[in-house]
Parts: sequence; C-alpha cells; structure tokens
Amino acid sequence: MTSLEKLVGSTDNGDNRNFGVDFVIHQLIPAQERTEAEAAFIQLIETLTKVGLATEVRAGSDNSLLIFTKIASWDFLAQQVYRSRLQDWLNGLRSSAPEREIRRALEDEPVTEAERSRIVYLLITKPQNDGGAGITPGNGQWRYIRSILPLHDHNFNKAWIKKWGQKYLLNQDDLDEIRDKFGEGVAFYFAFVQSYFRFLLFPSAFGLFAWLFLGKFSYFYALVNCLWSVVFFEFWKQKEVDMAVQWGVRGASRVQLPRPEFKWEYEAEDPVTGEPIKVYSPMKRIKTQLLQIPFALACIVVLGGVVVTCNSLEVYINEMYDGGGKAVLGLIPTILLSSLIPAFSAVLMKGAEVLTQWENYQNKDAYNAALIQKQFVLNFMTSYMALLFTLFVYIPFGEILIPFLNFWHSTAQVVSFNENPLPAKEFKINPARISGQMFYLTITAQIVSLLTQVVVPYVKRQVFAEAKKLSSKDTTPAVQDRPEEHEFLKRVRKECELEVYDVSTDYRQMVIQFGHLSMFSSAWPLAACCFLVNNWVELRSDAVKIAIGSQRPIPFRADTIGPWLTALGFLSWLGSVSSAAIVFLCGGSTDHERGTMSHISAWGVLSSVFLAEHFYFLVQMAVRYFMSKFESYGQQKERKERFLIKKRYLEETLGQGVAEQAATPGLTHGEKITREALEEQEREASIKGHASPEDLFWQRQRGVQETITVGRSMIEKAVTEKGASKPAQPSPRA
Amino acid sequence: MTSLEKLVGSTDNGDNRNFGVDFVIHQLIPAQERTEAEAAFIQLIETLTKVGLATEVRAGSDNSLLIFTKIASWDFLAQQVYRSRLQDWLNGLRSSAPEREIRRALEDEPVTEAERSRIVYLLITKPQNDGGAGITPGNGQWRYIRSILPLHDHNFNKAWIKKWGQKYLLNQDDLDEIRDKFGEGVAFYFAFVQSYFRFLLFPSAFGLFAWLFLGKFSYFYALVNCLWSVVFFEFWKQKEVDMAVQWGVRGASRVQLPRPEFKWEYEAEDPVTGEPIKVYSPMKRIKTQLLQIPFALACIVVLGGVVVTCNSLEVYINEMYDGGGKAVLGLIPTILLSSLIPAFSAVLMKGAEVLTQWENYQNKDAYNAALIQKQFVLNFMTSYMALLFTLFVYIPFGEILIPFLNFWHSTAQVVSFNENPLPAKEFKINPARISGQMFYLTITAQIVSLLTQVVVPYVKRQVFAEAKKLSSKDTTPAVQDRPEEHEFLKRVRKECELEVYDVSTDYRQMVIQFGHLSMFSSAWPLAACCFLVNNWVELRSDAVKIAIGSQRPIPFRADTIGPWLTALGFLSWLGSVSSAAIVFLCGGSTDHERGTMSHISAWGVLSSVFLAEHFYFLVQMAVRYFMSKFESYGQQKERKERFLIKKRYLEETLGQGVAEQAATPGLTHGEKITREALEEQEREASIKGHASPEDLFWQRQRGVQETITVGRSMIEKAVTEKGASKPAQPSPRA
Repeated sequence: MTSLEKLVGSTDNGDNRNFGVDFVIHQLIPAQERTEAEAAFIQLIETLTKVGLATEVRAGSDNSLLIFTKIASWDFLAQQVYRSRLQDWLNGLRSSAPEREIRRALEDEPVTEAERSRIVYLLITKPQNDGGAGITPGNGQWRYIRSILPLHDHNFNKAWIKKWGQKYLLNQDDLDEIRDKFGEGVAFYFAFVQSYFRFLLFPSAFGLFAWLFLGKFSYFYALVNCLWSVVFFEFWKQKEVDMAVQWGVRGASRVQLPRPEFKWEYEAEDPVTGEPIKVYSPMKRIKTQLLQIPFALACIVVLGGVVVTCNSLEVYINEMYDGGGKAVLGLIPTILLSSLIPAFSAVLMKGAEVLTQWENYQNKDAYNAALIQKQFVLNFMTSYMALLFTLFVYIPFGEILIPFLNFWHSTAQVVSFNENPLPAKEFKINPARISGQMFYLTITAQIVSLLTQVVVPYVKRQVFAEAKKLSSKDTTPAVQDRPEEHEFLKRVRKECELEVYDVSTDYRQMVIQFGHLSMFSSAWPLAACCFLVNNWVELRSDAVKIAIGSQRPIPFRADTIGPWLTALGFLSWLGSVSSAAIVFLCGGSTDHERGTMSHISAWGVLSSVFLAEHFYFLVQMAVRYFMSKFESYGQQKERKERFLIKKRYLEETLGQGVAEQAATPGLTHGEKITREALEEQEREASIKGHASPEDLFWQRQRGVQETITVGRSMIEKAVTEKGASKPAQPSPRA
Repeated sequence: MTSLEKLVGSTDNGDNRNFGVDFVIHQLIPAQERTEAEAAFIQLIETLTKVGLATEVRAGSDNSLLIFTKIASWDFLAQQVYRSRLQDWLNGLRSSAPEREIRRALEDEPVTEAERSRIVYLLITKPQNDGGAGITPGNGQWRYIRSILPLHDHNFNKAWIKKWGQKYLLNQDDLDEIRDKFGEGVAFYFAFVQSYFRFLLFPSAFGLFAWLFLGKFSYFYALVNCLWSVVFFEFWKQKEVDMAVQWGVRGASRVQLPRPEFKWEYEAEDPVTGEPIKVYSPMKRIKTQLLQIPFALACIVVLGGVVVTCNSLEVYINEMYDGGGKAVLGLIPTILLSSLIPAFSAVLMKGAEVLTQWENYQNKDAYNAALIQKQFVLNFMTSYMALLFTLFVYIPFGEILIPFLNFWHSTAQVVSFNENPLPAKEFKINPARISGQMFYLTITAQIVSLLTQVVVPYVKRQVFAEAKKLSSKDTTPAVQDRPEEHEFLKRVRKECELEVYDVSTDYRQMVIQFGHLSMFSSAWPLAACCFLVNNWVELRSDAVKIAIGSQRPIPFRADTIGPWLTALGFLSWLGSVSSAAIVFLCGGSTDHERGTMSHISAWGVLSSVFLAEHFYFLVQMAVRYFMSKFESYGQQKERKERFLIKKRYLEETLGQGVAEQAATPGLTHGEKITREALEEQEREASIKGHASPEDLFWQRQRGVQETITVGRSMIEKAVTEKGASKPAQPSPRA
C-alpha cells in the first residue's frame, strides 16, 4: 500500500505537518440558529462520508467548527485520479487515454499536490448527480459553511519566499513548482508577470534612451512602443499555448465548473451525448447583456463627471488662481478625487455584480469573465479618465474649460468672503500637464499601491488580531485542544480568518499598468523603467501575499489568462491611437509654451490617429504572419503527441508493417498484380464467351510489352508518314 | 469480385461509355525529338504498370499518343482507397479510423467517383518515394506529356445542365452531386455562389426600395449594406466549416500536395515524425516575399497612371470639350483603357507569376494562394481604380485635374489644326459621375463578361475546329481507329484540346462583384438586382463551361474557398470605408450641382470614414459573438463524432460499465470504502505499535458516528458557555 501512497502524493513533511489534511471546512454555529446549524453539521459529515472522505471535527474560534477531511483511502484516491484523467481525455485535454492499469498510470504520471487537492475539492463541491458531495459554501442548506480551504505548507512557503527574494529572474522550474503547489490558475499569473517583466527590459532601455536623447512626445518613441506592444501581445498569445501544452492543460477552459446559482428554464437532451442538460435561452441572456450598454454609459457619465469636475478645479487652482493658500487648496481636488472615485466605484462595482448575476451564466468561468469585463470598464475609467481628459479635452479644446474655470473662480470669490476681486492669472494651456500626471501615476501611485497591498494588510492583520485578543476572551475555542494538536489548530484557526486569494486583482494591476505604458508612455518615456522596478517587487510581494496574507488558493486549472487577454489586446490597440494623439497634440512643442494651441487642426489629429491605427493593424498582421511561419515548442509537442498515439494505435491494431506502410506508403508490387489481374480478367472473359466492350477495349494490348510495341509502331508511322510537319509545342497542364 | 467492383464505383453507363478509363495521358511526339519521345513513352508505360495501373495506347490527333489508364484490379483499388482513408485519419481529416476489414470499410462508406478519380490521379502524380508514379506533365523527363485528364461523363453532364436550367435555387443534393462527380474543390465554388445568390436577395430587395424611396447616396442604405456584408461574411465562414464537416474533408487543406518545382536547401529530420523532410529557410522566403511591396507599388503606379490618364481625358471630352465630333472622340478613352489595361495587366500578371515562383513554395496550395493574392492586387486595380479615382480624386479634389485638362485642351488644339481657339465649357465637378460608372459596370460590363465567357469560347471552338479541318488533312490519326472505338476516340481527342478548368477564374469574378456591391453600391443601389440576375445565369453558364468548354476537372479536395475568404473580408472592410466616403462626398447633393464642391472639409470625410470603420469593427464583433452562442450543424456533428468514437473506444477497452461511469460518474460506495479503509489503517497502526502523529490525528474519532457526537457536544458547549454572544455572520467563500 505504501507505494501507492507515495504515488498519490502523501504530504507528511516534518515539523509544520498538516496531519495529511486535504481540506478544512469552516462551519459557523450561530447561537440563535443552533438547531439548524447542528442539523447542517450532521448532514455535512454524512454527505462527506458518503462520497468517500474521512472526517475529523475540532473546535474553531468564535463559535465555529473545523471539519477536517481527507480522502478515506489511497485506493479510492488513486481511482479518483484515474477517473479524472479519463475524463480529461474524453474532454480532449489529453491526447492519450491514461494507462488502463491504474497503478501503472500513476507511476507514469505521478500525482502532484495540486492535482490531488483539486480532485478532493471537486469531490466536495461537485453536484451530487455528478458524483460529488455538492457542498456550496454559503448557499442553501450549506449557508453556515464559511469556507472550504486547503492548508498552507509553511515549509514550502518559507523556502519559496526566500528563494525568490534571492534571484533576479524566475525560470521554468520556479513556475513549475508554483503549478505543482497552487495549480495552473496561479502559475499562469506568475508566468504572465514573468514574461511581461522580461519584455519590459526593452522599453525600459529604449525609454531611458528616448528620455535622454529624444525628449518627450517623440514620434519615434511612439512608433517603437506601438511595435513593442504588438510583439508582446502576440508573443504572449503563443507563450500561453506553449505553457498550457507543457502543463498538459490545453483545453482546460472548455471543462467548466457549474455555477450553483445558475437558474435554468428547462431540461433538454444534449443532441450529442444524450445526457440531460439544463438550458437557459441564449437569446434571453443576450437581451440581458444589452443592459451593459446603459451601464457603461452610466459609468462614463458618473466617473467622467467626477473626473472633469475635479480636474477643472485642479486646473483652476494650479493654473489660474493666484490668491493665498494655494498649497493647501491644491490638495482639495486630490482629496475630492480620492474620496469620490472609490465611493462611486464601489456602487458601480456592485451594479456590475448584480448585472452579471442577472445574466445567469451556467458556469463559473463565464460568470467570472463577464464580471471582469464589466469591472474592467470601471477600472479603465478610474485609471485612464484623468489622462484621457487631459489629452482629448484639456489640450486640444482648453477653451471649453473656461466656463468651468469661471464657475470655480466665482465660487472661490464667494467662499473667500473677499470684496476685492480675487487675483487670477491668464489661463494658458500647458501640454506638459500630461507628463506630470504620468509621473505622478508611475512613481507616486505605484508606491502607494505597494503600501496598500503589502504593508496595510500586514498592519491590519496585526491590529485586528490584537483587537480580537483584547475585546473578547471567548475567541478561545469551547473545547481545550490536545497539546500535540494545539499549535496546528491555532495555525488552522488563523488561516480560516485570512482572505481568499483572488488572482484577478493581481492581473488587473498588471493589465492596467500595461495600458499606461502602451497608451501614455510617449508623454513620459521613463515609465517603463519604473514599471520594471515595480514589477520585480510586485512579483515577490504577490508571493508573500499568497504565502502569508491569504488562505492557500484552491488549485484550479487554467490554460489562458482568460478575459485579460482581450483586455491586453484592446489596450494595445488603443495605445496606437492615443500615442499618435499625444505626439501630435503635445509634440512640435515650443509653440505651445507661447500659448498658440488654438490652431491645432482637428484634421491633423484625426489623420495621425487614423494612420497610427492602420499602422498598428498592418504591424499586427505582419507579426502574426511571421510568427505563424515558425512552429512553437508547444505546437510541436502537441503534434508529436498526436502522431505517436496514432502510430501506436495503428501498430496495435494493424501490426507493425501496415502502420509503416500507411505512414510512408512504399512501392507495392504493382507489376505482379497487374499481370495476374489481367490474366484473370482475360480468362474470365473467355469463359463467359461474350466479353463486354469494356473488357475488349482493355484486352486489345495484352500486357505491357504489347502496349509498348503498339505505341512504338504508332510513333514510327506518325513520323514517317508526316515527315517534318510541326507538332504543337508541349504546354504543361497547370 | 463483382460486389467489390460495385463498391469501388465501376462506371460503365450505356451509350456514352468511357470503357472504364480513369485517366487519359496525352503525350506529344515531336517529329524532331522522336527518339527521346519514344523513350519517354516506354518509360511512362513501365512506370504506370509498376504502380499498379493498366494501360492501353491509341493514336491521338496531330502526332500524339493517347495513353489510357485504369487501376489494374479491383482489389488493388480497394486497397488504395483503404490506405488513403487511413492516411486521412492519420492527418486528422477523419475522426475515426476506417474499419479494419477492407470490404466492410468500403460497404460502410462507398467510394464516390471523385474519390476514386482522385486516388488514381495521386497514384499517377505522387512522387515515387511516396508510392506514386511521379509523373509531372511538362517537367523534366515528362516534358512531352501535355496533360493528364479524366474523361467527361456526358450522360451525367447532359442531365446536370438540363436539371439546373429548370430550377431557381440549388439545394444540398445538387451540391452533393457535384461533389461526388467533380470533387470538393469545384463543389465549394458552387456552394459559395449558391449561398451568395441567396444572400443577394436581401440587398436586391432593399436596393430596389432604396432606389425608389431613398435615392442615391443614402446614409441608411450604406449602413444596411455594411451590416449585410458583415453578416454574409461571417455566415459564409461558418457555412464553409459546416460543408467541410458534412463532406468529411475538414482539415483537407492541411494535407498538401508537393510542388514538383520546389527547390530545397537541405534535408532534415522532422522533429515529430522522424521522417526526412525537405527544408527551405522560411526567413529566405519571407525576404523574397518582401518584393511584393515594390511589386504592388509598381502595379499602382502603372495601372493607376493609365487610369488617371484615360479618366482625365474622358473628363475633358465629356465635360469640357465643346468642339465637333464629340460622339466619336468620346470613344477614345474607352478604347485606350480597354487596350492598355489588358496589355499592362498581362505583363504584371507574368511578373506576379515569376515572383511567386521565386518564393519557392513547397506545396501547391501555398503557391496558388500566394499567386492569387498577387493577382488580386492587379484585379483590384483594374476593377476598382476608375471608381476610386472618381471617388477620392475627381470629386473632392477636382481642381487638381485642371492642369491635366488644360494639357488635353492644348493637345486637342494642336491636333485639330485649327487656328481659332477650341470652344470649352467651364469645368464643373459632377458627383453623379460615380453612379454612371457603376451603372456601366453592372449592366454593360456584366453582359460583356458573359459574352466573353460563354459565347466567345463557343464560337472560338467552332471556328478553330473548322479551321483545323480546312488547313490540314493530317489531324486524322496515323492509325485507323477500330469502328467500335471510333466515336469514343474522337471524343477523347476533342477533350484533349479543351482548356483546363480553373476554378479561381470563377471565384475571382464573384469576389470582384462582391467588392463592387460592398464598396460602391451606395452610388447605385440597383447594383444588387443586376448581380442577382447575373449570378443566376453565371451559375448555369459555369456549369456549361465545365461540362462542355473544359476538360473534366481533376477532383481535388478542399475545405474552404481559401485565399478568396481573405479577399472577401478585405473588401467587406473596405466597403465600410468607401461607402462612408461616397455618402459624405456625393450626398447632401443639391449643392454640388451648383458647383460648390470646393468646401468639402477633409475633416468631414475623414471623420465619417473613421466612424464607419469603427462601426464596422463593432458590428463584426457583435455578429461574431452572437454567432458563437449557437452551435452550428457542422460543429455539432463533429462533436458528436468525436464523442461517439471515444465512447466506443472506452467500451471496447474498458467494458460497458466503466465507460458509463467515466462519462457520468455516479455515486460510489464511499461509505463502505471509508469504513474498511479506516479499520484497516487502524489495524495497521496497532500492529506497528507506534502510530504516527498523522494516524493518531485521524483516529481520534472512530467512524462517522463518533465525529457527529463529538461535533454535537462542541456545539452544545459553545452555545451554552457563551450564551447569546453574537457570532460573525456567515459570509460565503467567493
């Protein structure tokens, strides 16, 4: 039995051992609903046992129970792994079916921690008619369950953080390690950041060069930047496939986890598999999806309004107001922005969630993608609106701000209680404003975000824990821990309180950063350098966040960065447009400082944007064509796998010889066949007595030699009879 | 034997019988090179016999030989069919391997005429190391071979033409018939024209409506037209896949026929299959491909120059010249255009061919695609340049034509030998000019093209035959025909003289027509009506062309309309841009007639083009999204096939029960396993004497009942001890 135990990834590892626990289910026992909670607990244990999981219960902190589960026997786990792989093959994730003999299958491909953990998680959460326990935290009968979490492997985490802190670049092994531990979902994030980081080296170097020698608003920089973003995007699309093939998860996004909240209209039979499927009319969903249009408009109006208001106020204070307290007043717009935007954002985010729920997706991935898409609209507004406002309103049409400025001026007049008119400078458009904003965003904002991401949560955790200790003595569990389990249970209770790690937050940050680079870095070419430094730290701080700040992530599979890929493509395209606008509007610079911005021709902006966009499309086509000419590692691997499987199948069923013949058909014994066949047919004809016209036609010349002889006589005759009559030149059939 | 004979498609059919001939090889015997030709003939017969083909030789007309071939025996043919299907499966064209027993395989899927013919053709032409005879007409040792042709089935052809002449719309059966007879390559063309024809009904009706009620240059018409072209394009992309799945040729374009002219640099081992492959560096090819850019520029300059010259002359004569002989002079530009354009085109077409040969493609499809792409640039210029000139030069910038017009005026002055200055009207831009051109193109040009396609070749054939009869008496073959074969041989000799059918000529016509519709029909909304009528006739006249005017096509396979799809997409996109320009430049009309065209703002055109283009992208995205939500017939069929095969495989190898479990895993006897496993582990632990901490942890609660009891006691304790202390609200794990 021990050897099977090893094969399915037993994880007993020294001091920080997790006692072989696969998952902890954290159930609350609200005092008022004790009876229901107790009933739910009993049902939970029974259901888990029924699907083949062993359970132990311990007391949690704060009126809660910790239910520990693991798969009851190695044999059963091995069987589950085998079945999961078989289903992967049925779903087209694997090109070969797993070995028929289970033990050999596991020896050939050992089970990683992530695979084991994923299988157990699915066993707990899959619907009951799908062979799982159907436990959905927070829903229906399972509403007392707060979370289902795997336990951290602290030894691994320590080594991980230490190792990453000591190296500049990650390599494939590092990513493989993450994948084996936390699954492909998380590993794909790190792989993406790592690729992005490497790719940033070029624009960093070139940005530095541009900053030193070309200055801001350089055509050449914008062009190179656009090219770079296209290459990066196309590269990643291919890299993603390669990674997925290497990790054996290509096609994983086709295998969908059902959403327990999905409401279906009727059940129908799948026309392909004949199984009953739940149907919700796609037309109905599309109708609901149309609500996204007013939603997007609302976002634009609300957030846009805030941005325009605050920005015009800022412009007034910085560039027109000339009274006292300018330093203090200068903070007002920033304070306003940083309090209003999050407030409105939160409301709209909620709206996005509600809208996505209405859209009633059948599976989790579709739901997440739809939600992320809507959130992206919001992120887009909050991250880029101020810059876009400067670029497309303030710089070209500064004059239309004058009513706003006058409004602020009169407001200031009123607020100041001053009878004398407030002094005001003449309003002049300052095209360098956009560079200032970019500077603020890349330096200040990155530092702030780093603090809020790493330092604040840490402090929060400390303070929270302290507060808990002080405020109530009853966080200690109801039942005394056994001494040998005490440390372990303390740790588990702590992990239960941690936040759930959501990889999409981290993706969002990177994608928004990419947008800043592709859209606005022409205004401040050093941006890429800052991003490079930031991302080095970011990668490590994300690791720390996972290892210390969050519950251990459930190792879901993924074969792509999903909706973020679309976002990247969109930003890369928009980059071509906005870079062109920046260069045209802000460049050709010295004029602007003399305030002669009014003569910028709309025709000029539009045509440079138009040209840039089509340059972008052209470059994209060229890069795609170029890349399609070379077979990537992953494509080759996939092709090889397919080829080997088919070859094996052929050999198995048809025998060695035939397989080779089919793969590279050699010469066959045509001559023999022909002779025999002809002779046979001849015989047949003579036996029958009355040969058909067809048989007669084909027996005119008996055998090859006769054909040749007849042909030669024809040639001779033709030539001798007609002498030098000129034949038509041979022209080949196309 | 007879039953196998039927299975592989014996084709003996009454009066117009072809004596079971699969292919005729037409070899010339130039009198001067008699010895070489004779040697080649002997080699030909020997090579054919060696690969399993039976041969008969007869005299051809004009110093040539007709070598008739068929597969020597039914058994051998059956074996070849089986092998070809096996290779299809290896190449991923089929989802299931053919039945292992050959006879059953042929019973399950009977051999069509097209399949049989294709297999024999490949046997004749495939390289020798690939199991074929390696006969490449016109190349090297086979330079005396003029063509390899299958023979027409005249009974079928007659019935076909008659049937199609009597129905309005073709249905799937008609297309299937074509496919079984002439292969998927030709069938795809008819399927495309048929779909296009059906789709044309809408713009015809709407165009008529627009012509009656909206007039020319209507925004609304342009919008609807753009939408229609997007929908048609996306529809066809899906339809194409459906057809390919239905005909079992999906993936056929991946199986490539090698080009005999390909020159490789070195041989390498395929990293996947281990077979030797011939390599030509893709980088080198890409470098050669870059020559396309100067080539395209040359096309634009040369053809553009001719168009500008002739058009400005025409403008001068029609709109400025006021002297005598206007009617006669008006013909000059047309004559010039229709003599110069074909002349220059021919040279450039030759250039395109040479360039494509330099690019040195490894297989025929890639070569054809590259050639068609270059030819398309030329077709584009000759078909649309005049209209684009009117749209983007004459209408907005008519003034820049004035130097040209003055040049023509002074030329006319000199030529007329008239001392008095020639009378001239004032030059006025006439925006309706583009409508006139469209009218000419759709009505006149379509009629002309129809004539040149059907009537001219017919007359040519008649005259040619007559001339031949008169000029030389020696077209009669050197050897007298046997009376029972005389009619047949006469027919074969005639078919040898016919042209090779090239489907790309027909595609070109349709695609160029689609371009006229999508790009310029806003100027003359009735265009679609004309195209509808034209295409009804076209479809039939193409059938006539194949049946009577050409050699029977070799039934190549295809799973797409190939490079024409790209061309369609390109024209559909360009349509959005050019329609917007037409509407903006020519619409808002009454002004123009008063000659106040000078104030058209470039800004206006550019912004409407910009908007239209992005509207196009948006619509395209929406249509694609919408269509992706519904599984098409072909996709479903493919999914079903895959599913069934895997299911069968599972059942075969694992037994019925397991297959069902894997497909829809039901509940397993978890309880039993758990109990047994726990007990076993317990026993193990006690035997060992020293249980590990992990074992101890999991044996704290023996069995489910104890876990439940312990949990209940914890709940009780917690609640009673802490009374009404408020627990945290359950918040589900996301």
